[in-house]
Amino acid sequence: MRIALLGCGVVGSDVVRLLHTHAEDLAARVGAPLELAGVAVRRPSIARDIPVDPAVFTGDAAALATRDDIDIVVEVVGGIEPARGWLLAALRAGKSVVTANKALLATHGAALYDAAAAHGVDLYYEAAVAGAIPLLRPLRESLAGDRVRRVLGIVNGTTNYILTRMDETGAGFTEALEEATALGYAEADPSADIDGFDAAAKAAIIAQLAFHTRVTLDDVHREGIGDVTAADIASARAMGCTVKALAIAERSVEAPGVSVRVHPAMIPRAHPLAAVRDAFNAVFVEAEAAGQLMFYGRGAGGSPTASAVLGDLVAVARNRLAGRRGPGESAYAALPVLPMGATVTRYHINLDVTDKTGVLASVAAAFARQDVSIQSVRQDGHGDDASLVLITHAATDAALAATVEELRELDVVRAVASVMRVEGGEL
Amino acid sequence: MRIALLGCGVVGSDVVRLLHTHAEDLAARVGAPLELAGVAVRRPSIARDIPVDPAVFTGDAAALATRDDIDIVVEVVGGIEPARGWLLAALRAGKSVVTANKALLATHGAALYDAAAAHGVDLYYEAAVAGAIPLLRPLRESLAGDRVRRVLGIVNGTTNYILTRMDETGAGFTEALEEATALGYAEADPSADIDGFDAAAKAAIIAQLAFHTRVTLDDVHREGIGDVTAADIASARAMGCTVKALAIAERSVEAPGVSVRVHPAMIPRAHPLAAVRDAFNAVFVEAEAAGQLMFYGRGAGGSPTASAVLGDLVAVARNRLAGRRGPGESAYAALPVLPMGATVTRYHINLDVTDKTGVLASVAAAFARQDVSIQSVRQDGHGDDASLVLITHAATDAALAATVEELRELDVVRAVASVMRVEGGEL
Repeated sequence: MRIALLGCGVVGSDVVRLLHTHAEDLAARVGAPLELAGVAVRRPSIARDIPVDPAVFTGDAAALATRDDIDIVVEVVGGIEPARGWLLAALRAGKSVVTANKALLATHGAALYDAAAAHGVDLYYEAAVAGAIPLLRPLRESLAGDRVRRVLGIVNGTTNYILTRMDETGAGFTEALEEATALGYAEADPSADIDGFDAAAKAAIIAQLAFHTRVTLDDVHREGIGDVTAADIASARAMGCTVKALAIAERSVEAPGVSVRVHPAMIPRAHPLAAVRDAFNAVFVEAEAAGQLMFYGRGAGGSPTASAVLGDLVAVARNRLAGRRGPGESAYAALPVLPMGATVTRYHINLDVTDKTGVLASVAAAFARQDVSIQSVRQDGHGDDASLVLITHAATDAALAATVEELRELDVVRAVASVMRVEGGEL
Repeated sequence: MRIALLGCGVVGSDVVRLLHTHAEDLAARVGAPLELAGVAVRRPSIARDIPVDPAVFTGDAAALATRDDIDIVVEVVGGIEPARGWLLAALRAGKSVVTANKALLATHGAALYDAAAAHGVDLYYEAAVAGAIPLLRPLRESLAGDRVRRVLGIVNGTTNYILTRMDETGAGFTEALEEATALGYAEADPSADIDGFDAAAKAAIIAQLAFHTRVTLDDVHREGIGDVTAADIASARAMGCTVKALAIAERSVEAPGVSVRVHPAMIPRAHPLAAVRDAFNAVFVEAEAAGQLMFYGRGAGGSPTASAVLGDLVAVARNRLAGRRGPGESAYAALPVLPMGATVTRYHINLDVTDKTGVLASVAAAFARQDVSIQSVRQDGHGDDASLVLITHAATDAALAATVEELRELDVVRAVASVMRVEGGEL
């Protein structure tokens, strides 16, 4: 089996090392040696400290991806273009493809799946979501006889690290971000992580696998963690919760459809996801028959991602040797993706209020007018510092937004200090 | 695709229900309807409250398993015989097999694998280990490009429930077992769970998948939880640990070989397995490139087990429609299974000692003679109630056993109150 590797950065170098170190094991598991026949990089002449013949390097990825002697193309470059063009050409030339490219899959997945199906080859992408954590096979295969209700994922290590620090030390967002940057957990430009773009791409891929429905990045409602304050974290703690940045894919119980979204949320400390700390990732799945499942591990890093790539590579190589394809795209359900306004969840709302008789009555009336039911209320402080913390029963995002609008108009409400969704079951 | 179901108890009934409820989804995922063509039960004439034509019931499992019109045989009877004979006959008749039978796989797995390979059919068994938790595919496929170092599993819900209660309430073993029995978490005869037989069968299957090596139940060192005392739990707590019944499969770093064992052990409270409570199961995997992974969920129960059976059924049916086989047995590594004496781990030892000068010197000398290095010592009490708690560095089980023999002979040692292994990293 002759392999072409597109990209040789951190992940690519680790793929090369694993192919070299485990060559015998891999050959035994596949039934034939895996030979690295070409590595496409921007500057092929640079000396690299990896165990591979320098002659296999090339600067022409497009040519390598379709070269006659290549069986499988592994792409670890990332980004939409030129990766999209290379992989489409490779699939059309009858190569099987293994990719770690979440942005590409979440944006142009349909075209890639179609090309793979049309040319009878495999498209595997375990490394694209949650690094080394096996997710593609559990969702696509192990749960194929069940029905998934909901997936809650901590799929971005940077934001989980920041929120863990805020929870553990009481630090504010800016301080925790600085620490994450100093330790290498956050990039110089952290927007892809902080603003939820990375998690949104993964949410789209997870939703597609869980619900047999095509979902793209544009379908995903996205909110970052930049507005989470130390006060939010303290407020969560006071009610036995912690704040996590979640990727959520959920089947609607009201109407056929799925909700796919990324936002910070409070979850109970007893929830298995609450114990997922620092840069670890985890994906929590609720299925009708299987019940609650969780998959936990390292979501990023060269070596964990390379492990996932190699697992796919072994599967794809075995399939190819046997002249067959693995399971392809499953999109038969074709459920509509619901707008965020139709998403049903619960909310934690913190209001700065005047300390007058009748405040609660006015506030409660606003909720009632929008048909949002209140589960609990707590009044803190007095005089100018009075605050009202409310937790709602399940309501649509649209009804909640309308309620917040009404609250802002009330004389007794000085400010809506924070609104955060509550996920992960009863408090 | 025509299915024969052998057994229709709790799991079998849930398999029937899922096949009925999700018929459309299943047909879409497989590419053809899954038709329940026969159900073998001991008393076919009994009325059953499940959605299936009573005409499909038969008392003759052996005939059904090899009937010409059957494509796939699903076995949820359990036990060695007659299941072994039925499944061997089914495989030899060219049927693919899905089974939840851990005892059979751990005892006669080799014969079944060989029959499946010889007749070009599939043998899938996700439900045999840790119920609904996907483990077979992650170990067999997702980590196929990596090298597993160690697997630590909480794979028996009954013993985990008992140890959780002992930890939370300070109850003794007998009291916790009574509670588990009253709640239906323990069987009337709890020996299979308490004495570790159930976990040992699962450990053999896990070791086989993780290390590409045939491992049978006889290779597994087994110790139950019947001797775990409230004092052990309190002692574990005092050093920041909890006690769990673990199934362990580990690659030796000293010599080529694997250690496969089931026993209670102390693990640090910060370890992800420590948070796995009540009847939940979890399997913690350490792989060279992937790092730490954990899979968590319901390990037993009709509906979770049925979910795992259905996942296999979809995969096997897809393979059969496409005229191919999924990945078969991988046993190329053929590593020796080490005797327990050669297993290396750490130990927590609690001694009742006389309160005389020189006690520690005598005790330490006994450890030194057996080349067992002490990590920490704590002396508690005085006079007749003095105790010495020692934690060792890694040592072989044989050296530790010899040390304990020596300690029993020492004048200053009144009794070796307890010896427990310590797993899951540094304390």
